[in-house]
Amino acid sequence: MIRLNVTSRRVSEMIEITSEVRNAVRQSGVRDGMVQLFVPHTTAAVTINENADPDVVHDMLKALGKVVPSEDDYLHVEGNSAAHLKSSFFGASELVPLEEGELALGTWQGIYFCEFDGPRNRRLLVNILPA
Amino acid sequence: MIRLNVTSRRVSEMIEITSEVRNAVRQSGVRDGMVQLFVPHTTAAVTINENADPDVVHDMLKALGKVVPSEDDYLHVEGNSAAHLKSSFFGASELVPLEEGELALGTWQGIYFCEFDGPRNRRLLVNILPA
Amino acid sequence: MIRLNVTSRRVSEMIEITSEVRNAVRQSGVRDGMVQLFVPHTTAAVTINENADPDVVHDMLKALGKVVPSEDDYLHVEGNSAAHLKSSFFGASELVPLEEGELALGTWQGIYFCEFDGPRNRRLLVNILPA
Repeated sequence: MIRLNVTSRRVSEMIEITSEVRNAVRQSGVRDGMVQLFVPHTTAAVTINENADPDVVHDMLKALGKVVPSEDDYLHVEGNSAAHLKSSFFGASELVPLEEGELALGTWQGIYFCEFDGPRNRRLLVNILPA
Repeated sequence: MIRLNVTSRRVSEMIEITSEVRNAVRQSGVRDGMVQLFVPHTTAAVTINENADPDVVHDMLKALGKVVPSEDDYLHVEGNSAAHLKSSFFGASELVPLEEGELALGTWQGIYFCEFDGPRNRRLLVNILPA
Repeated sequence: MIRLNVTSRRVSEMIEITSEVRNAVRQSGVRDGMVQLFVPHTTAAVTINENADPDVVHDMLKALGKVVPSEDDYLHVEGNSAAHLKSSFFGASELVPLEEGELALGTWQGIYFCEFDGPRNRRLLVNILPA
Protein backbone atom coordinates (compact mmCIF):
# COMPACT_ATOMS: atom_id res chain seq x y z
CA MET A 1 0.00 0.00 0.00
CA ILE A 2 1.44 3.31 -1.09
CA ARG A 3 0.26 6.61 0.39
CA LEU A 4 0.37 9.80 -1.67
CA ASN A 5 -0.01 13.32 -0.32
CA VAL A 6 -2.19 15.80 -2.20
CA THR A 7 -2.44 19.50 -1.35
CA SER A 8 -5.49 21.38 -2.62
CA ARG A 9 -5.49 25.15 -3.01
CA ARG A 10 -9.15 25.93 -3.70
CA VAL A 11 -12.57 25.00 -2.30
CA SER A 12 -13.33 22.81 -5.33
CA GLU A 13 -10.52 21.44 -7.43
CA MET A 14 -9.64 18.47 -9.62
CA ILE A 15 -5.93 17.73 -9.30
CA GLU A 16 -4.41 15.37 -11.83
CA ILE A 17 -2.39 12.56 -10.21
CA THR A 18 -1.90 10.22 -13.18
CA SER A 19 1.91 10.41 -13.20
CA GLU A 20 2.16 9.83 -9.43
CA VAL A 21 -0.06 6.74 -9.76
CA ARG A 22 1.97 5.53 -12.77
CA ASN A 23 5.19 5.84 -10.76
CA ALA A 24 3.72 3.92 -7.82
CA VAL A 25 2.62 1.11 -10.14
CA ARG A 26 6.03 0.90 -11.80
CA GLN A 27 7.79 0.76 -8.42
CA SER A 28 5.56 -2.14 -7.38
CA GLY A 29 6.74 -4.30 -10.26
CA VAL A 30 3.22 -5.73 -10.71
CA ARG A 31 2.57 -6.52 -14.39
CA ASP A 32 -1.12 -7.45 -14.53
CA GLY A 33 -4.09 -6.89 -12.27
CA MET A 34 -5.76 -3.74 -11.02
CA VAL A 35 -4.87 -0.63 -9.06
CA GLN A 36 -7.36 0.80 -6.58
CA LEU A 37 -7.09 4.49 -5.73
CA PHE A 38 -8.83 5.15 -2.42
CA VAL A 39 -9.59 8.50 -0.78
CA PRO A 40 -9.79 8.20 3.04
CA HIS A 41 -11.78 11.44 3.33
CA THR A 42 -15.52 12.20 3.20
CA THR A 43 -15.48 15.55 1.38
CA ALA A 44 -13.17 14.50 -1.45
CA ALA A 45 -13.23 11.84 -4.16
CA VAL A 46 -11.29 10.35 -7.06
CA THR A 47 -12.42 10.16 -10.67
CA ILE A 48 -11.17 9.52 -14.20
CA ASN A 49 -11.88 12.06 -16.94
CA GLU A 50 -10.35 14.05 -19.78
CA ASN A 51 -6.92 15.56 -19.26
CA ALA A 52 -6.42 17.28 -22.63
CA ASP A 53 -8.48 20.49 -22.37
CA PRO A 54 -8.52 22.13 -18.89
CA ASP A 55 -11.92 23.62 -19.76
CA VAL A 56 -13.45 20.18 -19.21
CA VAL A 57 -12.49 20.15 -15.54
CA HIS A 58 -13.64 23.75 -15.17
CA ASP A 59 -17.04 22.94 -16.69
CA MET A 60 -17.42 19.76 -14.64
CA LEU A 61 -16.81 21.51 -11.31
CA LYS A 62 -19.10 24.40 -12.22
CA ALA A 63 -21.92 22.09 -13.39
CA LEU A 64 -21.48 19.89 -10.32
CA GLY A 65 -21.89 23.00 -8.16
CA LYS A 66 -25.22 23.65 -9.84
CA VAL A 67 -26.38 20.06 -9.28
CA VAL A 68 -25.49 20.22 -5.57
CA PRO A 69 -25.71 23.82 -4.31
CA SER A 70 -23.28 24.78 -1.54
CA GLU A 71 -25.93 26.69 0.35
CA ASP A 72 -29.32 25.15 1.14
CA ASP A 73 -31.38 24.25 4.22
CA TYR A 74 -28.66 21.87 5.47
CA LEU A 75 -28.56 20.87 9.14
CA HIS A 76 -24.89 19.82 9.40
CA VAL A 77 -23.15 22.61 11.34
CA GLU A 78 -19.84 22.37 9.47
CA GLY A 79 -21.66 23.73 6.41
CA ASN A 80 -20.06 21.28 3.98
CA SER A 81 -22.98 18.92 3.30
CA ALA A 82 -22.76 19.60 -0.43
CA ALA A 83 -19.16 18.37 -0.39
CA HIS A 84 -20.26 15.13 1.30
CA LEU A 85 -22.86 14.44 -1.41
CA LYS A 86 -20.40 15.26 -4.18
CA SER A 87 -17.99 12.78 -2.58
CA SER A 88 -20.57 9.98 -2.82
CA PHE A 89 -21.50 10.98 -6.38
CA PHE A 90 -17.92 10.61 -7.66
CA GLY A 91 -16.95 7.92 -5.15
CA ALA A 92 -14.09 7.19 -2.77
CA SER A 93 -12.46 4.67 -5.14
CA GLU A 94 -11.32 4.57 -8.71
CA LEU A 95 -9.92 1.49 -10.43
CA VAL A 96 -7.54 1.15 -13.34
CA PRO A 97 -6.69 -2.13 -15.07
CA LEU A 98 -2.98 -3.01 -15.19
CA GLU A 99 -1.65 -4.59 -18.36
CA GLU A 100 2.01 -5.48 -18.91
CA GLY A 101 3.07 -3.17 -16.09
CA GLU A 102 1.17 -0.12 -17.35
CA LEU A 103 -2.11 1.64 -16.51
CA ALA A 104 -4.62 0.61 -19.20
CA LEU A 105 -6.07 4.13 -19.49
CA GLY A 106 -7.70 5.43 -22.66
CA THR A 107 -5.99 8.08 -24.78
CA TRP A 108 -7.75 11.04 -23.16
CA GLN A 109 -8.10 9.70 -19.62
CA GLY A 110 -6.36 11.12 -16.57
CA ILE A 111 -6.84 10.30 -12.87
CA TYR A 112 -8.04 13.18 -10.72
CA PHE A 113 -8.08 13.72 -6.97
CA CYS A 114 -11.28 15.73 -6.40
CA GLU A 115 -11.33 18.29 -3.60
CA PHE A 116 -14.78 19.54 -2.59
CA ASP A 117 -14.03 21.25 0.75
CA GLY A 118 -10.56 22.72 0.43
CA PRO A 119 -8.00 23.95 0.67
CA ARG A 120 -6.60 21.02 2.69
CA ASN A 121 -3.77 18.53 2.95
CA ARG A 122 -5.13 15.18 1.79
CA ARG A 123 -3.99 11.60 1.36
CA LEU A 124 -4.64 8.99 -1.31
CA LEU A 125 -4.05 5.24 -0.97
CA VAL A 126 -2.68 3.30 -3.95
CA ASN A 127 -3.63 -0.36 -3.49
CA ILE A 128 -2.24 -2.69 -6.17
CA LEU A 129 -3.90 -6.07 -6.71
CA PRO A 130 -1.97 -8.55 -8.87
CA ALA A 131 -4.13 -10.79 -11.10
CA MET B 1 -18.43 -14.79 -0.37
CA ILE B 2 -20.37 -13.65 2.67
CA ARG B 3 -24.00 -12.50 2.43
CA LEU B 4 -25.37 -9.94 4.89
CA ASN B 5 -29.04 -9.15 5.43
CA VAL B 6 -30.12 -5.53 5.74
CA THR B 7 -33.63 -4.40 6.69
CA SER B 8 -34.65 -0.87 5.79
CA ARG B 9 -37.48 0.91 7.58
CA ARG B 10 -38.00 4.02 5.45
CA VAL B 11 -38.32 4.93 1.76
CA SER B 12 -34.85 6.51 1.73
CA GLU B 13 -32.30 5.52 4.31
CA MET B 14 -28.55 5.18 4.78
CA ILE B 15 -27.84 2.28 7.14
CA GLU B 16 -24.32 2.00 8.52
CA ILE B 17 -22.84 -1.48 8.08
CA THR B 18 -19.18 -0.82 8.92
CA SER B 19 -19.03 -3.16 11.92
CA GLU B 20 -20.73 -6.02 10.03
CA VAL B 21 -18.21 -5.63 7.21
CA ARG B 22 -15.33 -5.48 9.69
CA ASN B 23 -16.50 -8.71 11.32
CA ALA B 24 -16.75 -10.46 7.94
CA VAL B 25 -13.22 -9.38 7.04
CA ARG B 26 -11.82 -10.58 10.38
CA GLN B 27 -13.54 -13.97 10.01
CA SER B 28 -11.97 -14.39 6.57
CA GLY B 29 -8.46 -14.15 7.97
CA VAL B 30 -7.32 -12.19 4.89
CA ARG B 31 -4.58 -9.70 5.82
CA ASP B 32 -4.05 -7.63 2.69
CA GLY B 33 -6.03 -6.96 -0.45
CA MET B 34 -9.44 -5.42 -0.98
CA VAL B 35 -13.03 -6.00 0.06
CA GLN B 36 -15.82 -5.45 -2.46
CA LEU B 37 -19.29 -4.68 -1.09
CA PHE B 38 -21.89 -5.45 -3.75
CA VAL B 39 -25.62 -4.67 -3.71
CA PRO B 40 -27.61 -7.17 -5.85
CA HIS B 41 -30.56 -4.75 -6.14
CA THR B 42 -31.40 -1.98 -8.62
CA THR B 43 -33.04 0.55 -6.28
CA ALA B 44 -30.37 0.49 -3.57
CA ALA B 45 -26.64 1.22 -3.43
CA VAL B 46 -23.60 1.27 -1.17
CA THR B 47 -21.42 4.28 -0.36
CA ILE B 48 -18.76 5.51 2.04
CA ASN B 49 -19.28 8.77 3.90
CA GLU B 50 -19.11 10.46 7.31
CA ASN B 51 -20.37 8.53 10.32
CA ALA B 52 -19.75 11.12 13.04
CA ASP B 53 -22.66 13.56 12.71
CA PRO B 54 -26.02 12.00 11.69
CA ASP B 55 -27.00 15.35 10.14
CA VAL B 56 -24.65 14.57 7.24
CA VAL B 57 -26.69 11.54 6.19
CA HIS B 58 -29.91 13.51 6.66
CA ASP B 59 -28.63 16.34 4.46
CA MET B 60 -27.28 13.96 1.82
CA LEU B 61 -30.58 12.10 1.41
CA LYS B 62 -32.57 15.34 1.31
CA ALA B 63 -30.24 16.97 -1.24
CA LEU B 64 -30.23 13.78 -3.33
CA GLY B 65 -34.04 13.90 -3.36
CA LYS B 66 -33.83 17.40 -4.83
CA VAL B 67 -31.34 16.31 -7.51
CA VAL B 68 -33.57 13.40 -8.57
CA PRO B 69 -37.24 14.18 -7.83
CA SER B 70 -39.45 11.18 -6.90
CA GLU B 71 -42.30 12.43 -9.06
CA ASP B 72 -41.77 13.45 -12.67
CA ASP B 73 -43.00 12.40 -16.11
CA TYR B 74 -41.56 8.89 -15.66
CA LEU B 75 -42.89 6.01 -17.79
CA HIS B 76 -41.91 3.07 -15.56
CA VAL B 77 -45.15 1.84 -13.99
CA GLU B 78 -43.61 0.85 -10.65
CA GLY B 79 -43.08 4.57 -9.97
CA ASN B 80 -39.54 4.12 -8.61
CA SER B 81 -37.48 5.46 -11.51
CA ALA B 82 -35.85 8.05 -9.23
CA ALA B 83 -34.57 5.20 -7.03
CA HIS B 84 -33.03 3.49 -10.07
CA LEU B 85 -31.11 6.64 -11.03
CA LYS B 86 -29.96 7.21 -7.44
CA SER B 87 -28.69 3.62 -7.44
CA SER B 88 -26.49 4.28 -10.48
CA PHE B 89 -25.30 7.61 -9.04
CA PHE B 90 -23.97 6.00 -5.84
CA GLY B 91 -23.18 2.65 -7.48
CA ALA B 92 -23.75 -1.03 -6.74
CA SER B 93 -20.21 -1.54 -5.42
CA GLU B 94 -17.95 0.02 -2.85
CA LEU B 95 -14.35 -1.01 -2.25
CA VAL B 96 -12.19 -0.78 0.85
CA PRO B 97 -8.46 -1.55 0.94
CA LEU B 98 -7.40 -4.20 3.47
CA GLU B 99 -4.17 -3.61 5.36
CA GLU B 100 -2.85 -5.96 8.05
CA GLY B 101 -6.27 -7.53 8.48
CA GLU B 102 -8.15 -4.28 8.91
CA LEU B 103 -10.30 -2.00 6.75
CA ALA B 104 -8.11 0.95 5.70
CA LEU B 105 -10.90 3.50 6.22
CA GLY B 106 -10.24 7.13 7.08
CA THR B 107 -11.03 8.50 10.53
CA TRP B 108 -14.50 9.75 9.65
CA GLN B 109 -15.50 7.14 7.08
CA GLY B 110 -18.29 4.62 7.53
CA ILE B 111 -19.81 2.19 5.02
CA TYR B 112 -23.50 2.71 4.29
CA PHE B 113 -26.12 0.51 2.66
CA CYS B 114 -28.33 3.02 0.80
CA GLU B 115 -32.03 2.25 0.49
CA PHE B 116 -33.90 4.32 -2.11
CA ASP B 117 -37.17 2.35 -2.43
CA GLY B 118 -37.90 0.93 1.00
CA PRO B 119 -38.82 -0.37 3.37
CA ARG B 120 -37.52 -3.76 2.20
CA ASN B 121 -35.44 -6.76 3.19
CA ARG B 122 -32.16 -6.49 1.29
CA ARG B 123 -28.93 -8.39 0.83
CA LEU B 124 -25.31 -7.30 0.53
CA LEU B 125 -22.42 -9.42 -0.77
CA VAL B 126 -19.02 -9.15 0.90
CA ASN B 127 -16.40 -10.32 -1.59
CA ILE B 128 -12.85 -10.42 -0.22
CA LEU B 129 -9.93 -10.37 -2.65
CA PRO B 130 -6.51 -11.21 -1.18
CA ALA B 131 -3.57 -9.31 -2.68
CA MET C 1 -7.70 -8.75 -20.53
CA ILE C 2 -10.55 -9.04 -23.01
CA ARG C 3 -11.63 -6.11 -25.19
CA LEU C 4 -15.23 -5.79 -26.34
CA ASN C 5 -16.49 -3.47 -29.08
CA VAL C 6 -19.68 -1.50 -28.51
CA THR C 7 -21.43 0.58 -31.18
CA SER C 8 -23.84 3.26 -30.02
CA ARG C 9 -26.54 4.63 -32.30
CA ARG C 10 -27.86 7.62 -30.35
CA VAL C 11 -26.47 10.59 -28.42
CA SER C 12 -27.46 9.05 -25.07
CA GLU C 13 -27.96 5.32 -24.79
CA MET C 14 -27.65 2.48 -22.29
CA ILE C 15 -26.64 -0.70 -24.14
CA GLU C 16 -26.93 -3.96 -22.24
CA ILE C 17 -23.75 -6.04 -22.37
CA THR C 18 -24.48 -8.67 -19.69
CA SER C 19 -24.32 -11.66 -22.03
CA GLU C 20 -21.06 -10.50 -23.63
CA VAL C 21 -19.51 -10.11 -20.17
CA ARG C 22 -20.86 -13.52 -19.09
CA ASN C 23 -19.27 -15.15 -22.16
CA ALA C 24 -15.91 -13.49 -21.47
CA VAL C 25 -15.98 -14.73 -17.87
CA ARG C 26 -16.83 -18.30 -18.92
CA GLN C 27 -14.03 -18.32 -21.49
CA SER C 28 -11.55 -17.26 -18.80
CA GLY C 29 -12.29 -20.32 -16.68
CA VAL C 30 -11.99 -18.25 -13.49
CA ARG C 31 -14.34 -19.60 -10.81
CA ASP C 32 -14.16 -17.05 -7.99
CA GLY C 33 -13.02 -13.45 -7.71
CA MET C 34 -14.20 -10.30 -9.39
CA VAL C 35 -14.63 -8.92 -12.88
CA GLN C 36 -13.85 -5.27 -13.58
CA LEU C 37 -15.52 -3.63 -16.56
CA PHE C 38 -13.58 -0.54 -17.59
CA VAL C 39 -14.51 2.14 -20.12
CA PRO C 40 -11.41 3.79 -21.66
CA HIS C 41 -13.43 6.85 -22.76
CA THR C 42 -14.30 10.12 -21.01
CA THR C 43 -17.84 10.69 -22.33
CA ALA C 44 -19.15 7.17 -21.62
CA ALA C 45 -19.53 5.00 -18.53
CA VAL C 46 -20.63 1.59 -17.29
CA THR C 47 -23.37 0.90 -14.74
CA ILE C 48 -25.56 -1.87 -13.35
CA ASN C 49 -29.33 -1.42 -13.27
CA GLU C 50 -32.66 -3.06 -14.08
CA ASN C 51 -32.95 -5.01 -17.33
CA ALA C 52 -36.58 -6.13 -17.08
CA ASP C 53 -38.61 -3.05 -18.10
CA PRO C 54 -36.99 -0.88 -20.84
CA ASP C 55 -38.89 2.12 -19.43
CA VAL C 56 -36.39 2.19 -16.55
CA VAL C 57 -33.47 2.96 -18.87
CA HIS C 58 -35.60 5.51 -20.73
CA ASP C 59 -36.51 7.28 -17.48
CA MET C 60 -32.92 7.17 -16.19
CA LEU C 61 -31.45 8.80 -19.29
CA LYS C 62 -34.18 11.44 -19.39
CA ALA C 63 -33.82 12.28 -15.69
CA LEU C 64 -30.03 12.35 -16.00
CA GLY C 65 -30.41 14.85 -18.85
CA LYS C 66 -32.38 17.11 -16.51
CA VAL C 67 -29.74 16.82 -13.76
CA VAL C 68 -26.94 17.74 -16.18
CA PRO C 69 -28.28 19.91 -19.02
CA SER C 70 -26.58 19.50 -22.41
CA GLU C 71 -26.56 23.24 -23.01
CA ASP C 72 -25.24 25.67 -20.43
CA ASP C 73 -22.48 28.26 -20.16
CA TYR C 74 -19.80 25.64 -20.77
CA LEU C 75 -16.34 26.70 -21.97
CA HIS C 76 -15.17 23.42 -23.55
CA VAL C 77 -15.34 23.97 -27.30
CA GLU C 78 -16.37 20.42 -28.17
CA GLY C 79 -19.73 21.14 -26.51
CA ASN C 80 -19.88 17.81 -24.67
CA SER C 81 -19.12 18.92 -21.10
CA ALA C 82 -22.39 17.44 -19.86
CA ALA C 83 -21.28 14.04 -21.16
CA HIS C 84 -18.01 14.34 -19.24
CA LEU C 85 -19.84 15.02 -15.95
CA LYS C 86 -22.30 12.16 -16.58
CA SER C 87 -19.30 9.90 -17.14
CA SER C 88 -17.89 10.74 -13.70
CA PHE C 89 -21.34 10.39 -12.07
CA PHE C 90 -21.78 6.81 -13.30
CA GLY C 91 -18.07 5.99 -13.32
CA ALA C 92 -15.55 4.40 -15.67
CA SER C 93 -15.62 1.06 -13.83
CA GLU C 94 -18.21 -1.44 -12.69
CA LEU C 95 -17.44 -4.54 -10.67
CA VAL C 96 -19.26 -7.84 -10.42
CA PRO C 97 -18.40 -10.61 -7.95
CA LEU C 98 -17.63 -14.02 -9.47
CA GLU C 99 -18.96 -17.09 -7.67
CA GLU C 100 -18.51 -20.65 -8.96
CA GLY C 101 -17.77 -19.37 -12.45
CA GLU C 102 -20.82 -17.11 -12.73
CA LEU C 103 -21.56 -13.39 -12.37
CA ALA C 104 -23.17 -12.91 -8.93
CA LEU C 105 -25.76 -10.44 -10.24
CA GLY C 106 -29.14 -9.94 -8.59
CA THR C 107 -32.32 -11.14 -10.31
CA TRP C 108 -33.10 -7.82 -11.99
CA GLN C 109 -29.56 -6.58 -12.62
CA GLY C 110 -28.00 -6.10 -16.04
CA ILE C 111 -24.69 -4.49 -17.01
CA TYR C 112 -24.98 -1.43 -19.26
CA PHE C 113 -22.47 0.40 -21.39
CA CYS C 114 -23.58 4.05 -21.12
CA GLU C 115 -23.07 6.31 -24.12
CA PHE C 116 -23.36 10.05 -23.42
CA ASP C 117 -21.86 11.54 -26.59
CA GLY C 118 -22.77 9.18 -29.41
CA PRO C 119 -23.16 7.72 -31.82
CA ARG C 120 -19.63 6.27 -31.71
CA ASN C 121 -17.62 3.07 -31.86
CA ARG C 122 -16.48 2.32 -28.32
CA ARG C 123 -14.42 -0.24 -26.44
CA LEU C 124 -14.84 -1.91 -23.06
CA LEU C 125 -12.14 -3.76 -21.12
CA VAL C 126 -13.06 -6.92 -19.22
CA ASN C 127 -10.45 -7.46 -16.50
CA ILE C 128 -10.89 -10.65 -14.48
CA LEU C 129 -9.27 -10.92 -11.05
CA PRO C 130 -9.18 -14.41 -9.51
CA ALA C 131 -9.63 -14.53 -5.72
